[in-house]
Amino acid sequence: MKIPAMMKAAVMPKPMEIMLEELPVPGPAPDEVLIQVMAVGVCGSDVHYYQHGRIGPYVVEKPIILGHECSGVIVACGDRVTQFSPGDRVAVEPGVTCGTCAYCKSGRYNLCPDVAFLATPPIDGAFVQYIRHRADFVFPIPDSLSFEDAALVEPFSVGIHALQRAGFRPGMDVAVIGLGPVGLMAVVAAKLLGASRIAASDMEENRLEAARALGATHVFAASRPDIMAEIRGAAGDGVDVALETAGHESAVRTALGSLKRGGKLAVIGLPPEPEARMNIPFICDNEIEIFGVFRYANTYPLGIRLLAGGQIDLSPLITDRYTLDQTQQALEQALRNKSASLKVIVYPHG
Amino acid sequence: MKIPAMMKAAVMPKPMEIMLEELPVPGPAPDEVLIQVMAVGVCGSDVHYYQHGRIGPYVVEKPIILGHECSGVIVACGDRVTQFSPGDRVAVEPGVTCGTCAYCKSGRYNLCPDVAFLATPPIDGAFVQYIRHRADFVFPIPDSLSFEDAALVEPFSVGIHALQRAGFRPGMDVAVIGLGPVGLMAVVAAKLLGASRIAASDMEENRLEAARALGATHVFAASRPDIMAEIRGAAGDGVDVALETAGHESAVRTALGSLKRGGKLAVIGLPPEPEARMNIPFICDNEIEIFGVFRYANTYPLGIRLLAGGQIDLSPLITDRYTLDQTQQALEQALRNKSASLKVIVYPHG
Amino acid sequence: MKIPAMMKAAVMPKPMEIMLEELPVPGPAPDEVLIQVMAVGVCGSDVHYYQHGRIGPYVVEKPIILGHECSGVIVACGDRVTQFSPGDRVAVEPGVTCGTCAYCKSGRYNLCPDVAFLATPPIDGAFVQYIRHRADFVFPIPDSLSFEDAALVEPFSVGIHALQRAGFRPGMDVAVIGLGPVGLMAVVAAKLLGASRIAASDMEENRLEAARALGATHVFAASRPDIMAEIRGAAGDGVDVALETAGHESAVRTALGSLKRGGKLAVIGLPPEPEARMNIPFICDNEIEIFGVFRYANTYPLGIRLLAGGQIDLSPLITDRYTLDQTQQALEQALRNKSASLKVIVYPHG
Amino acid sequence: MKIPAMMKAAVMPKPMEIMLEELPVPGPAPDEVLIQVMAVGVCGSDVHYYQHGRIGPYVVEKPIILGHECSGVIVACGDRVTQFSPGDRVAVEPGVTCGTCAYCKSGRYNLCPDVAFLATPPIDGAFVQYIRHRADFVFPIPDSLSFEDAALVEPFSVGIHALQRAGFRPGMDVAVIGLGPVGLMAVVAAKLLGASRIAASDMEENRLEAARALGATHVFAASRPDIMAEIRGAAGDGVDVALETAGHESAVRTALGSLKRGGKLAVIGLPPEPEARMNIPFICDNEIEIFGVFRYANTYPLGIRLLAGGQIDLSPLITDRYTLDQTQQALEQALRNKSASLKVIVYPHG
Repeated sequence: MKIPAMMKAAVMPKPMEIMLEELPVPGPAPDEVLIQVMAVGVCGSDVHYYQHGRIGPYVVEKPIILGHECSGVIVACGDRVTQFSPGDRVAVEPGVTCGTCAYCKSGRYNLCPDVAFLATPPIDGAFVQYIRHRADFVFPIPDSLSFEDAALVEPFSVGIHALQRAGFRPGMDVAVIGLGPVGLMAVVAAKLLGASRIAASDMEENRLEAARALGATHVFAASRPDIMAEIRGAAGDGVDVALETAGHESAVRTALGSLKRGGKLAVIGLPPEPEARMNIPFICDNEIEIFGVFRYANTYPLGIRLLAGGQIDLSPLITDRYTLDQTQQALEQALRNKSASLKVIVYPHG
Repeated sequence: MKIPAMMKAAVMPKPMEIMLEELPVPGPAPDEVLIQVMAVGVCGSDVHYYQHGRIGPYVVEKPIILGHECSGVIVACGDRVTQFSPGDRVAVEPGVTCGTCAYCKSGRYNLCPDVAFLATPPIDGAFVQYIRHRADFVFPIPDSLSFEDAALVEPFSVGIHALQRAGFRPGMDVAVIGLGPVGLMAVVAAKLLGASRIAASDMEENRLEAARALGATHVFAASRPDIMAEIRGAAGDGVDVALETAGHESAVRTALGSLKRGGKLAVIGLPPEPEARMNIPFICDNEIEIFGVFRYANTYPLGIRLLAGGQIDLSPLITDRYTLDQTQQALEQALRNKSASLKVIVYPHG
Repeated sequence: MKIPAMMKAAVMPKPMEIMLEELPVPGPAPDEVLIQVMAVGVCGSDVHYYQHGRIGPYVVEKPIILGHECSGVIVACGDRVTQFSPGDRVAVEPGVTCGTCAYCKSGRYNLCPDVAFLATPPIDGAFVQYIRHRADFVFPIPDSLSFEDAALVEPFSVGIHALQRAGFRPGMDVAVIGLGPVGLMAVVAAKLLGASRIAASDMEENRLEAARALGATHVFAASRPDIMAEIRGAAGDGVDVALETAGHESAVRTALGSLKRGGKLAVIGLPPEPEARMNIPFICDNEIEIFGVFRYANTYPLGIRLLAGGQIDLSPLITDRYTLDQTQQALEQALRNKSASLKVIVYPHG
Repeated sequence: MKIPAMMKAAVMPKPMEIMLEELPVPGPAPDEVLIQVMAVGVCGSDVHYYQHGRIGPYVVEKPIILGHECSGVIVACGDRVTQFSPGDRVAVEPGVTCGTCAYCKSGRYNLCPDVAFLATPPIDGAFVQYIRHRADFVFPIPDSLSFEDAALVEPFSVGIHALQRAGFRPGMDVAVIGLGPVGLMAVVAAKLLGASRIAASDMEENRLEAARALGATHVFAASRPDIMAEIRGAAGDGVDVALETAGHESAVRTALGSLKRGGKLAVIGLPPEPEARMNIPFICDNEIEIFGVFRYANTYPLGIRLLAGGQIDLSPLITDRYTLDQTQQALEQALRNKSASLKVIVYPHG
């Protein structure tokens, strides 16, 4: 496979501006592979950096390349890489961890304080034609999995991780509050992992439709006055697990109140106001468990297997497609058109 | 053992009034034992019923006998009881569950919706000379365990249960926020279960002293301006598990902020205002887990073993002693003298 | 619903003899329901009692009614039963436990020493027209679940329980060694719980065919010389979980050797010779876990949900059907015709 | 701290022969530290390589330095090491893993197929004056922990890991079968982690005495005819967890038979004959769990904390002391004098 010397990259020199540049194609380090990037999903965090130049403590201080949900084809392998060959189709797990801290060693590598995560400043991301990445965070995908779907393994992983942390088991009932791409992929995760009933809620009608197409058994407009009771009722007497992805205090409260006794709430979405009020007696009397979700760990092989099974058609989720030259349009679309767009994909090789 | 026909009982006909009555000594049902009550601890919930006549949805609608932390000596056994004989010294687990619901069958019997719990309306409690109780919620105690300490197995169980739910393991660091009897017994639980560092915090100096005597390695007045940072620092970079027993929003926030990445917060205390604000990004970024604690399950045998080992002298905790005739004084002492009293014990047989 | 005074029952006065008798229809105790029995599966243990009059320490010392895999329709409810009404279709969990021992209280009620299990001496079983049973061990079934399939929830539960104890999660690879009804239902359990690859092995060709129809992805005749390596290879480098249901030392060894590093082996089948040789260095070096399976606990609601989903057609498993008058023929068929028969069902109401 | 250019090393050119050589002191790689080795325990595996030149598939094919239980003082740090400074006292975890395979990433790094373990061919070990080691497998020790005791953290880790895998919790009853150093340190682990009753068994009287000194509550000569019943009786009706470290089929059988219903058996010792017969109906009926133990993972910080607490005096365990020049004598002592020697320590700096 012939590797060019130069490639195109969509660089953000400052917020609200993306410039296409010519950059040298990097060579892989001994433990890395070089990947021809075929599909990159636009994530809410990309849009947030594009708009604001920062997310909490992470500040864009010099030009950065965004994009971290990606897949592609291996074109070169570092000297110590034995598990891959050029031509292998792969999904990329974007966070490269140290492997040596107590979190890494105990299996919770998503809490590694030294992670280098694609498109989190100052690490460049995937809106490029070629990217190098440590081989142990690259996973083979079967021919049955498209590059778009392989890129979606990233947000899918959040749902898998949340359900695994909740001790989810097949037959349980799940609620998903907030149906952006992460929420919709959480619906898919609940479905493919064997949830019995899946209640889903959002403000936008198109998202409710997508949720139903992707496996939700009950959908509710978030504006309904008695939304909490409706979700509880959908599962008999409350759900076993609720996933909050909307990032609003009211959504946290809906999610909490939809739980059955002994139920568990995964908090995934970051609200604009950091503080949310929670009902302590409800939490105590019912031994509710609430846990935060930060990315994921050890989810890619399972995520790929589940999506490659082909049981669920993800096309209702992918609403917009752009070339690398159109990366700014892709980000604008994701930013401006929240009611019609769901997942926006950039194709660096057209 | 001669069982009298009549006994004394401390009945609360209405809030703020306790009357000593003569009642027939009950006979045990086939699966019950009859216990001569030797020591009864006064719990905050007893005081709350005494003062307000209700706790949340539980309302005292007719005369009730309070008291649920108790121990004694078996004096008679129902026909189907084989594991006990008259003369056995025992601790009493106050909540009798149905044994047939999904919660009971899966090992979380503290969530049984049909529990009959001593001194929770309309069930009478232990401020009496003799009480009957289902034999499977009665546990033998060795001679090395005093009746007072056996009564303390009840609040001790809350700490054990909270630590078990937190996945506590020896060597972990623990914070206990709020040092009433439940908090102090949580310090004891952390100590006896092998905590490395135990940071404890309260408003009252006498409670901090008791915490230190009972095993806390670091104590902090709750009024200190940088209490959260001090607790974090006591454990290096935050504790593994924090137990909130104070029932105040500020205590919840201190407990939450004292956690290390991946840490767990047990919410035990019920605040006067039901809602507490929590920092969602902190919970998400650090994958914090927050869980409510409602009583306990399967803790009595372990609690008895731990206290009977004699490693910790509980006497700093027991500050006041009364006879059954003085039950109202005992409740008044617990109600009025919070800064000097810790655990108040009533001795129904003097 | 009119309940007759007398009913037919298939009584075994001594091994190898079944006599049809007229017995009074029992009345339900306050916590029981009376069930019109519609379908009863013949289990290997029924056949063993029929042939030998004993299984290990359990000896048939007086006439007994066999059969414990059953379903039916509720015709009467005891005074304290509120969750059922006459006409409800139900599956019956055959073991009624004490609810008060340490095993029951901690969620492992299948280890209750005082269980009363249908058709385990001296408890009578289900080859009758009406049976009474404690209501908390009776579970409603939807119309989409046939009575035959509801009876199969019993052997299905063994597979569910084994997989749950193994920490099975979707995406794992499973081997099932031995494909009698328990093994075949374990294949179904692995499939419906989300196994990725399912390797199945048995001596009999018809069972391999059934396994494939029920969800096995790879089937192997047990006689193949390199069976262990073939099963390992089917899963890449060994399976995550192996279930041994054949009850032969060689099957235990095949199952053990088919595991990947860190894999888990469920031992379900009872071999004629109690002792099996196991390779200790293999177990140590690979941190293999081997665990025994004794019946199941808390599996019925999930089992019913999974089978009622209709994803797998169980008809390849049900090979023989008899009326209650033909109970002896049913037992003879299960005993004599192992190569052609799989599950034999008796219909007490024709 | 002045680091010499050359050092002494005890090299084994072939079995049964140790030669003292002068070797260059190595320099640490960027992620390594250089350690002045102060104490090295002689392990059974060292003795086995010394005697036989191999352990199973691991064959000594060129001169090797043995020894892997060690502690010392850091004398130099690689460029990327920030957590240590020269002068730090440390314990060394001997197995350096890849950090990138699925086992490493999921927290079970002891199953890493690419581990480099001190004194496992072809990796050299610790019978030297200076050793370099990857910094993330080196752990600081407090002044309260002697170098000998720090070296014992290695065998101690086996006991901790076995108990953690068993789901051990304080208050449980434990049996330890086989009381070589690993078994004796398992007694210490059970004691410090809060076991209630600890039954210990071995052939040798001096080991039984040591076990009692280290925390065993009941000791039994392995030759007693009814050893299994005696161990069961020591714990009432069988132990919760049994640890087999003797490496004999009869010990495996004793350990298995000493378990209560639902108990767990850790298989640690490697028997001379690989196969051991196990009673399948006992395993099934009682839902016994048997698991292999291969080294340990994530145990060092806890092990150091527990031993540094000073609750147990380990001196009964350390019976022989040698200089580096006497390494062959140390190995001979461990080999020849099994009835009097327990742990033999080599001091590379006298």
